[in-house]
Amino acid sequence: MVPGFRAGGVASGIKKDGARDLALIFCPGGASAAGLFTTNQVRAAPVLIARQAVRRGRAAAILANSGCANAYTGGPGMADARALLRRAARILDRRPDEILPASTGVIGERLPVPAIQRALPALVEKLSARGWRAAADAIRTTDTRPKLAWRRGRGALGAVRVVGIAKGSGMVEPHMATILVFLATNARVGGPLLRRLLKEACDRTFNRLSIDGCTSTNDMSLILASGEGCPDPLRPGERRTRLFSAMLGEVCADLADQILEDGEGATKRVRIRVRGARSDREAARAAYAVGNSPLVKTAITGADPNWGRIVQALGASSARIDPGRLGIQIGEAAIVRRGAYGGAAAEQAARRVMRGAAFDIRIELGLGRGEAEIGTCDLTEAYVRINASYRS
Amino acid sequence: MVPGFRAGGVASGIKKDGARDLALIFCPGGASAAGLFTTNQVRAAPVLIARQAVRRGRAAAILANSGCANAYTGGPGMADARALLRRAARILDRRPDEILPASTGVIGERLPVPAIQRALPALVEKLSARGWRAAADAIRTTDTRPKLAWRRGRGALGAVRVVGIAKGSGMVEPHMATILVFLATNARVGGPLLRRLLKEACDRTFNRLSIDGCTSTNDMSLILASGEGCPDPLRPGERRTRLFSAMLGEVCADLADQILEDGEGATKRVRIRVRGARSDREAARAAYAVGNSPLVKTAITGADPNWGRIVQALGASSARIDPGRLGIQIGEAAIVRRGAYGGAAAEQAARRVMRGAAFDIRIELGLGRGEAEIGTCDLTEAYVRINASYRS
Repeated sequence: MVPGFRAGGVASGIKKDGARDLALIFCPGGASAAGLFTTNQVRAAPVLIARQAVRRGRAAAILANSGCANAYTGGPGMADARALLRRAARILDRRPDEILPASTGVIGERLPVPAIQRALPALVEKLSARGWRAAADAIRTTDTRPKLAWRRGRGALGAVRVVGIAKGSGMVEPHMATILVFLATNARVGGPLLRRLLKEACDRTFNRLSIDGCTSTNDMSLILASGEGCPDPLRPGERRTRLFSAMLGEVCADLADQILEDGEGATKRVRIRVRGARSDREAARAAYAVGNSPLVKTAITGADPNWGRIVQALGASSARIDPGRLGIQIGEAAIVRRGAYGGAAAEQAARRVMRGAAFDIRIELGLGRGEAEIGTCDLTEAYVRINASYRS
Repeated sequence: MVPGFRAGGVASGIKKDGARDLALIFCPGGASAAGLFTTNQVRAAPVLIARQAVRRGRAAAILANSGCANAYTGGPGMADARALLRRAARILDRRPDEILPASTGVIGERLPVPAIQRALPALVEKLSARGWRAAADAIRTTDTRPKLAWRRGRGALGAVRVVGIAKGSGMVEPHMATILVFLATNARVGGPLLRRLLKEACDRTFNRLSIDGCTSTNDMSLILASGEGCPDPLRPGERRTRLFSAMLGEVCADLADQILEDGEGATKRVRIRVRGARSDREAARAAYAVGNSPLVKTAITGADPNWGRIVQALGASSARIDPGRLGIQIGEAAIVRRGAYGGAAAEQAARRVMRGAAFDIRIELGLGRGEAEIGTCDLTEAYVRINASYRS
């Protein structure tokens, strides 16, 4: 699918139900590499190791598991991760620090290292250019489906391919980092530029997503660029670089949408667009305050245009608001205009919009030029059921 | 019940099911008065009016309704509230600015002023020294039961009584103000001292409560002090004042517990005690981050000692933590000690504790002397059901 890469996923026995839980992405020729990592103060062992390794700007593989986060496991957890990397490096004939580890699952539990080591040869055996879906499947936790997106370049980028896989369903509010997202391209891009392009794409997509307001200990997004079939490197400021950035952004946006669609227990996807804040930062705060409010989320569940809860969430947020200037639109229905209720007809129209599976809530603060947009979802009884019984 | 006061509650027709929705507390002789109000940037009409009126330090009555918040109703909402106060003042033979208004219910809807005005004479007729339970009943929204607490003084305060009623079930995270809480005493206390005593009592109780992390537009707590039968006024620094402060604190703590027990859909009450933070402020942030996390709340629902979610919430909070110094105790079970997992036996013990209806989660940050304690509850499918269908 992307020249230079092979991928795959197998069941190694971490998940008790025998589902796939170990993924490998391999670039035998080596690749430029960049990564973004969680801002949580508690960082999982694979986050600490991958963050260190990716600084060199080069890597050859990503080894990821689901079913166990290897987070808050201290020195033993670091040793576990390193033991796996050493075994994988021997089989792939690379150095351990060329393999980037990632984990997702229950926090505080140790990895079953021997079982994973036993599964590695078969995983390497199964690697193929078309193995991305199996890899996407192997990084799922409560995700109900694998998340995969790809784009092929056009025009000057005719030879370029970008593929991405992601996982994320609960504990999702990335802030500056992301869920688990692995991207691969055969574009030729140096490490520093690759990191900048990755950051821009993530800021526009994964970093504007909130399912439940919880920032994980294991978030990371990694990108590898093999350069295979693309002799001419991308350079900052070039038109080709802007085109590549757009491609990367599309793959990330596609994956972010898939994550939102598959939010734990979610039945509705909602984009919250805030304008007129005093700054972009305040606009984002206002958007998150609305998107994370359990009362707004449950109103969405019930298709109830209870705009009072939106007003309440905005008023309680750390973004400045002026009640008299506020505008709230649900779909095309202007339910609040310049601080006044839009009337029963607008409310009826909003209720119809909210019965759909995806819609926008637009908020005008009327105070400045700051704006932000986030994607969120509803809070359902299924979310509670899933999370009340996750480990049981 | 408290010399100088009469109270009562009737159905005025705001609630469509014919339940009580209008409460009146009356002190014919006039009383010292103090109040605390929501910090939400959107303040309901009754909040604006009561905050202004209470500045004089004197009042004679509290008129409160449920079923409609009269919030975000602009100039017309202010006029509605004032029309009700004028009518009540005429019947009670007081000035309108001696009556403190309060409302709770749906945000953005107008009060049915004529219906409420028609109900006022009957309400005044029904006022009695024993009418507190009817008044507590009339300020309920999703509360499943009225909340009432009282104390009688001992020793030097033998003649003093304190009674309080409260409502609060959802949209509860008071921060510096509170739910609706009305307190009455026959102690003789001047306005400024009364306000200080009220603030101290609220800070220790209602301001340490979070059901769903939502700060309402209508929060207020009011206290009236008639002085009846207590000729000698309380003065700052006196032993009698400290005793009175303790009585007031007990009534508030009792009401706060009742609010927590009746949290929307809640089945479990949990106290989160944080110690060892760099400051009390950071300790409170850490406690709220844990108490408001939907993943921690649903783990509580499922009686799952998933301490990884507590670690995740602490790490994502704005309080500084050091993973290696962390301690987490559920009941008496030390599930994390100085950054390390406490073992399967501790986890089993924690699970047993969590099957109970009330327990503590104690968190040691090991960084300083800051501490805080909040009360919270679980997040259940019933919470989602209640709030997805509130207005429907």
